[in-house]
Amino acid sequence: MNLKEIKTPADIKGLDIEQLSELCTQIRQALLDRLSRSGGHIGPNLGMVEMTVALHYVFDSPSDKIVFDVSHQSYTHKILTGRAGAFVNPSEYGCVSGFTNPKESEHDFFCIGHTSTAASLASGLAKARDMKGGSENIIAVIGDGSLSGGEAFEGLDYAATLNSNFIAIINDNDMSIAPNCGGIYANLQLLRSTDGTAECNFFKSMGFDYKYVAYGNDLRTLIDTFESVKGCGHPVVLHIRTQKGKGFAPAEAHMERFHYGGPFDKSNGNPLNISSDESYTEIFTKHMLEMMKQRPDVAVITAGTPGAIGFGPEERSLAGSQFIDVGIAEQDAVGMASGMAKGGVRPVFGVVSSFLQRSYDQLSQDVAINGTPAVLNIFFGSVFGMNDATHLGWFDIPLVANIPGWVVLAPTCKEEYLAMLDWAVEQREHPVAIRVPGGSVLSKKRAFDHDYSRINKFEIMRPGSKVAIIATGTFHSIGEDTADLLASKGIEATLVNPRYISGLDEEMLREFESNHSLVITLEDGCLAGGFGEKVAAFYGTSAMRVACYGLPKEFRDRYSVADLLNECRLTPQQIAEDTEAMLKTLAK
Amino acid sequence: MNLKEIKTPADIKGLDIEQLSELCTQIRQALLDRLSRSGGHIGPNLGMVEMTVALHYVFDSPSDKIVFDVSHQSYTHKILTGRAGAFVNPSEYGCVSGFTNPKESEHDFFCIGHTSTAASLASGLAKARDMKGGSENIIAVIGDGSLSGGEAFEGLDYAATLNSNFIAIINDNDMSIAPNCGGIYANLQLLRSTDGTAECNFFKSMGFDYKYVAYGNDLRTLIDTFESVKGCGHPVVLHIRTQKGKGFAPAEAHMERFHYGGPFDKSNGNPLNISSDESYTEIFTKHMLEMMKQRPDVAVITAGTPGAIGFGPEERSLAGSQFIDVGIAEQDAVGMASGMAKGGVRPVFGVVSSFLQRSYDQLSQDVAINGTPAVLNIFFGSVFGMNDATHLGWFDIPLVANIPGWVVLAPTCKEEYLAMLDWAVEQREHPVAIRVPGGSVLSKKRAFDHDYSRINKFEIMRPGSKVAIIATGTFHSIGEDTADLLASKGIEATLVNPRYISGLDEEMLREFESNHSLVITLEDGCLAGGFGEKVAAFYGTSAMRVACYGLPKEFRDRYSVADLLNECRLTPQQIAEDTEAMLKTLAK
Repeated sequence: MNLKEIKTPADIKGLDIEQLSELCTQIRQALLDRLSRSGGHIGPNLGMVEMTVALHYVFDSPSDKIVFDVSHQSYTHKILTGRAGAFVNPSEYGCVSGFTNPKESEHDFFCIGHTSTAASLASGLAKARDMKGGSENIIAVIGDGSLSGGEAFEGLDYAATLNSNFIAIINDNDMSIAPNCGGIYANLQLLRSTDGTAECNFFKSMGFDYKYVAYGNDLRTLIDTFESVKGCGHPVVLHIRTQKGKGFAPAEAHMERFHYGGPFDKSNGNPLNISSDESYTEIFTKHMLEMMKQRPDVAVITAGTPGAIGFGPEERSLAGSQFIDVGIAEQDAVGMASGMAKGGVRPVFGVVSSFLQRSYDQLSQDVAINGTPAVLNIFFGSVFGMNDATHLGWFDIPLVANIPGWVVLAPTCKEEYLAMLDWAVEQREHPVAIRVPGGSVLSKKRAFDHDYSRINKFEIMRPGSKVAIIATGTFHSIGEDTADLLASKGIEATLVNPRYISGLDEEMLREFESNHSLVITLEDGCLAGGFGEKVAAFYGTSAMRVACYGLPKEFRDRYSVADLLNECRLTPQQIAEDTEAMLKTLAK
Repeated sequence: MNLKEIKTPADIKGLDIEQLSELCTQIRQALLDRLSRSGGHIGPNLGMVEMTVALHYVFDSPSDKIVFDVSHQSYTHKILTGRAGAFVNPSEYGCVSGFTNPKESEHDFFCIGHTSTAASLASGLAKARDMKGGSENIIAVIGDGSLSGGEAFEGLDYAATLNSNFIAIINDNDMSIAPNCGGIYANLQLLRSTDGTAECNFFKSMGFDYKYVAYGNDLRTLIDTFESVKGCGHPVVLHIRTQKGKGFAPAEAHMERFHYGGPFDKSNGNPLNISSDESYTEIFTKHMLEMMKQRPDVAVITAGTPGAIGFGPEERSLAGSQFIDVGIAEQDAVGMASGMAKGGVRPVFGVVSSFLQRSYDQLSQDVAINGTPAVLNIFFGSVFGMNDATHLGWFDIPLVANIPGWVVLAPTCKEEYLAMLDWAVEQREHPVAIRVPGGSVLSKKRAFDHDYSRINKFEIMRPGSKVAIIATGTFHSIGEDTADLLASKGIEATLVNPRYISGLDEEMLREFESNHSLVITLEDGCLAGGFGEKVAAFYGTSAMRVACYGLPKEFRDRYSVADLLNECRLTPQQIAEDTEAMLKTLAK
């Protein structure tokens, strides 16, 4: 069968089991071709081929509704719903995103990228169906790794009480992104080892009907199982054992490395295009490993993404019990960090900007109100971070910096980053969040202040007059270049590295009023609720003009950084041009 | 024993069981005296008397560390840790808060007010102990109602994997604030009915050792149980059945009504000081019940606080299946609302401002990125809301209004509120959040616009010149009074009701530049990341002056509204005074 001929799932319903099996082979080949060339979620998709074919063979999408948790495993679903071109033609690879998206297909119900949301979303669909008197099947596909997330628990706990059809598929490949962490995983192990017969059953304890499927990559078994629950009138969990990376030996053998990755050699799995450039992640890992060796009271916490913060199997082994993975459970990671700080040790929670969003209340209640000196190390909080709409690193400034008590630091280069990290761990007065710079590593090869205890004390990098450029974090270098450009035009701008982005150096800002008429702010994040707006409000009743540069209040998907910066007038040329024009107007 | 003579828990360690029992009687009497006079959490505290006495008799606080979830049940703990005066002397009632607070006592480890956090915080303390080589007991006391919250699950799931002492006490009174909702509660029921012997056990499935205690108000049993686990080297759940409201017949009989309440008649439990004033909560409930009767596609969602949104047992019964309680599970409530909106029905999630914080990522990912037209009805988002540091309603503007796509509306009176609520339910284009006004109900007895589809279209209430007052929501009346005061001094201010606080009417703001030199913003929330800062940034490069009035970026505890408004210069007199001074300066 030519994959591109599949326009809708109806096109596979006439196939017999051999043909379906052959279809799986073709799909797996297409996935491997694409993944090896352009990267993506490798293991999750290879493991889901048979299940997805069986789902679409048995159920009637889009009338029946399948919600994929995280939706990073939805490539086969895309192939079966009219989007095969994006998997077989390299020129069309960019036509679909790596996640489900209603804009692409009526078979995608939500744009999903964070874990643990499918049960909630699907139970909403189920409740709507019940209110409208419908009878379609609602299916939530949830990986075992996602089960540790609070929303997954909340969603399943409610869904179990529905008096109507709700099919939760637990896709158990015995792996999260990294190995699973959390008490329930011993129960999954018990269920696997007893073929689902153990009486002590996490899902049954929540009230679900339960079926175990040991061979989750076997089409016949899957089809029979799905047929057996199709149209059932109550909530059921299908606990299905699959093989992550199925059909590609290196991915089966190295599940963590092949969860997500760039292009690789199909013959042996070896990564292609390895960069030899130093990354901020490596800098963090190396620094923390060294620090932990010296100080047994320091610990690094991750919420299920050790690789994203540079702690692969080897680094975890070196860190030993000073490395804590709580599973995909950001709320617990922040609560734990507060408890540990209260208990007298020094926790550093390394977290991806977008996932930090899952712990707002803990940042506020568990930490800030208590003033516990927890440390956050925020990665990818930058325009240079991930560029999927669901993973933007644009919102952590408004998120954290508006909570009373948090000291948010924005280092501008490697040396300043490490100086701030050292201070954050050393001090015991404040909750401190460090926004790791985005983009390639910038080294200034000079020493930086190691004491940041004078909160909100900005630093003047170059004194000047008329215009002051307050350039934060990653965008400090844009500020430098702008100042250079202005200097070449005879305008000696003041350049400021504010370092703190959760508050203002009011004394310095007041002083600027004596010989400046314009302040420019640059921030590597969404302007709404951010740093620049605070500067503008501070000067609101004065004659000082303020121009804020930053990212728009939008969810952009797969943007080009250069195009976006240009659109936001965030190039040094544009800012210098604007500045000249504003100064000219003011001089009138 | 004179309760006031108890300075530390050591003072009760020499008592025999009869004396301890007599102590419980005295404590319960003191609680009833205080609660009947000044209100508070009635049922939770009456149920915890024996357990708290037994905990402090067996364990050695503060070396052993007890963390109370929500900490609304910590009154007996306060009495036993040197704070009895605040429970026996009416003049000292105000000396302690209703929650644990490290500023009050070394026996309080955290300032806690939200549910479901104790396991995370306590496991942080446990991890810190292990890193430091300590051997103290770490005890988390969690009510059954709190178990439905995602952070509780995440915390327990991790704690179960500790290879060291961790004692989780599940205080099971078979009630949340209202009756429990969620699948796990059937398991708690099964465990209660089998004396804890059922094989299918939620806690054991997470990996906990487990003991069931059927008589959780019996001192001897509790002491023996605690002795049996003191110093144990692994995580254990003590599932303890208690009676909510124990010892006060009306509270035992009406557990929901006596969860939290104002002063009551000790002889019969009847409430005192009943207000006959209409409340916004009643207005919401009445309106939604009427709407749901007309429209079977409308539903109201609560996350475990039906009473706080006006849905008591009677209203819930009237609403039937159109009222959904997901349990204390705000993440699921928002995810569900998105799913329901996607499924074509109209969900209205009624939520207390402070608790909405628990669903930031769901507001962003589950709703905003998907553009699902879910409706939020936010109560107590106001300086007039709850005034405990842990329950402030000051932060929902920065929380929601900076997320792309959310339309946040701030009605100024009853009629406008209902018009906005009707529109929010009617439309299917946007996620809409309505900030219910705070304070007493204001009726303008006139019709309001019923179409809010022109997003960010502000309304001019009085045209004027020189100064424009943009007065949002509850604070619109402060703006009106300010305009009156200014008029009496010959300044005809423009008065604006912006209605939308998630964006700006840029056209109107630009027009103001022709005949205004000053814009005043008033918002009933924290200034940092709020509405006023956006106005200031908009005018940043123009000559317009902007003065923002709102609440400080702080966690205030038990403040007086009048004092706070005065301190923030938020009285009409102060604003008028400031305005006159600013206009005078500008005229120079």
